[in-house]
Amino acid sequence: MADTISFARGAPSADIVDIDGLKQAAVDAFETDPAGISGYGTAIGYVPLRRWIAEKHGVPEDHVLVTNGSMQADAFLFDETVAAGDAVVVERPTYDRTLLGLKERGADVHMIGLQADGIDVDELRTALQGGLRPKLAHVIPNFQNPGGSTLSLEKRKALLALADEYDFLIFEDDPYVDVRFTGEPLPRMLELQGDANRVVYASSFSKTVCPGVRVGYLIGPPELIARIVRRATNTYIAPSQVAQAIVHRFVTGDRFPAALQKVKTALEERATTLGAALREHLPEATFVQPEGGYFLWVELPAGEGHDCARIAAEAATRGVQIVKGTDFLLEGGENAFRLAYSAVKAEQVEEGVRRLAEAVAAAKG
Amino acid sequence: MADTISFARGAPSADIVDIDGLKQAAVDAFETDPAGISGYGTAIGYVPLRRWIAEKHGVPEDHVLVTNGSMQADAFLFDETVAAGDAVVVERPTYDRTLLGLKERGADVHMIGLQADGIDVDELRTALQGGLRPKLAHVIPNFQNPGGSTLSLEKRKALLALADEYDFLIFEDDPYVDVRFTGEPLPRMLELQGDANRVVYASSFSKTVCPGVRVGYLIGPPELIARIVRRATNTYIAPSQVAQAIVHRFVTGDRFPAALQKVKTALEERATTLGAALREHLPEATFVQPEGGYFLWVELPAGEGHDCARIAAEAATRGVQIVKGTDFLLEGGENAFRLAYSAVKAEQVEEGVRRLAEAVAAAKG
Repeated sequence: MADTISFARGAPSADIVDIDGLKQAAVDAFETDPAGISGYGTAIGYVPLRRWIAEKHGVPEDHVLVTNGSMQADAFLFDETVAAGDAVVVERPTYDRTLLGLKERGADVHMIGLQADGIDVDELRTALQGGLRPKLAHVIPNFQNPGGSTLSLEKRKALLALADEYDFLIFEDDPYVDVRFTGEPLPRMLELQGDANRVVYASSFSKTVCPGVRVGYLIGPPELIARIVRRATNTYIAPSQVAQAIVHRFVTGDRFPAALQKVKTALEERATTLGAALREHLPEATFVQPEGGYFLWVELPAGEGHDCARIAAEAATRGVQIVKGTDFLLEGGENAFRLAYSAVKAEQVEEGVRRLAEAVAAAKG
Repeated sequence: MADTISFARGAPSADIVDIDGLKQAAVDAFETDPAGISGYGTAIGYVPLRRWIAEKHGVPEDHVLVTNGSMQADAFLFDETVAAGDAVVVERPTYDRTLLGLKERGADVHMIGLQADGIDVDELRTALQGGLRPKLAHVIPNFQNPGGSTLSLEKRKALLALADEYDFLIFEDDPYVDVRFTGEPLPRMLELQGDANRVVYASSFSKTVCPGVRVGYLIGPPELIARIVRRATNTYIAPSQVAQAIVHRFVTGDRFPAALQKVKTALEERATTLGAALREHLPEATFVQPEGGYFLWVELPAGEGHDCARIAAEAATRGVQIVKGTDFLLEGGENAFRLAYSAVKAEQVEEGVRRLAEAVAAAKG
């Protein structure tokens, strides 16, 4: 079989990580703060990194908690705010691990449709008017996983108004925001809310530094953050000070702007190549061309017997890995799949799509 | 006030951590395995480190899970094995965070007395004969926290026999084993059990490398480890690959034996000095002189109105921090406190104890 081409995993390829920069950041960290880096630290996170995050987002430090990756932040937040039976809103489709985390906690998950400009606020409003009372609405505003779409400014404001009116928390899950490669950045709901305390915001250094550091963070109302700090203390005392200190030296170092630009340039090339290849080899597919991030969500015409499980199996026999659309939904998605272009070099993208088109044809036959 | 002397925190002072060795280990890690260190990895842990741990303990790799510190390992194990109402045996006194973790999960905690040679196996047997049916017995076999005592070989075997007879799991929580500075090492219950699958073993690199890496691990029956791997995946994907790779390079490097010896030499000097100072300045105190680890548990004569809360407060006004005995117990402990000597340089120990003796006297008055 030809080389495997994986569109499955939302992770960067090693060639776009600035390993030399990270190595230098590690040396700097051990040299400049030996006591801080080697000690336990506390659950709030490595203090200089927490301060850097607070300054980046213009919030007081006690609004910030640094965690062992942002999925750990999600888990702490769900443990603290979601009880069995609680209604929670998510996008349709949404990140499979979020869906799993909510289902495991017994949440009553309500999926609200995702459009090219983000979650369908009208559908959400109708559901709220119909009596839905969510504790939390989970939204991935930028380059959504798996949808690839970005929430418009108008909808960000509309969501905040709904959160105020119906008294729920918006969980703004935003790991991809800093890998925007085209278009204009939009203000975060965290900023747009003013003093409303309606938003809990999560992000990560996995996409801007590398996943292997496992450093993410949560920003929210200080009372909630304090409760989660207690939970984190009782779970693991603290996230890795060594990893956090390396991240801190890296993102405050001279090389970071160029390193981040390299990531964005590579992602843009991969995304552009993927869109073009899909239009050429799989013209019946529809998708949102993302402005950043890792993912592209492909829908095939409904009612034509497409079955993503069969397509994934046929693709696998051709050395191409994809994730079935059904993984991101409670029901439906058979005519869809997710392509992660983050780890597929541009020169492999077209070959991958060519084989994928064969797989789609074979799965129909 | 004079310089603060803290006997409170179980952590090493920075002067006994081999910062240069860690820095070199970080450089080596980034140079030798850039893809492994920068990628997500999986919840089982950084593969070369997991293999090293498996070899150290003579178990297959699928018995091992590397975690974000060993307290995270405890939390995963408790989440997986302890439901509300389940009986769990712990030592009396025991590590305060273990007690808290069990109470938070609604466990029915049974404390069994700790003697100079470890948990009182006769008291445990009597409780079992009386109908106690624990899911788990948590034991810190070496240089117990807070008691300082070490479980004898005879009792290790007796505990295993009881676990077989009454069908419970032994949680052998062993973070201090490799910082033994005197006496002969004893075999782990993990080894003594043969093929019995009665023991889940936890340890850590916090005491041999440094706490700031946050790298611990769990060893257990592969079916249980597989369930915990799923839980870990859904919680944080993976612990920090960067931190784990640095630990791996450090413990397999040339400098490690000398670095560990430096830690042990410093701990021995601190423990010896502390014991001598207590005998001199606080002759009414009783304690087990530990053969390793970080802690010494001081008991004052019962029935003489000692109150550890008042002693701790009086000590604090004299710039000395200790932890009250009551923190490590469900009831009692007013006449006791824990002294951690891990971070107090030998030249400060005597001054600390001198002030502490004043505090004990003042608290009685």
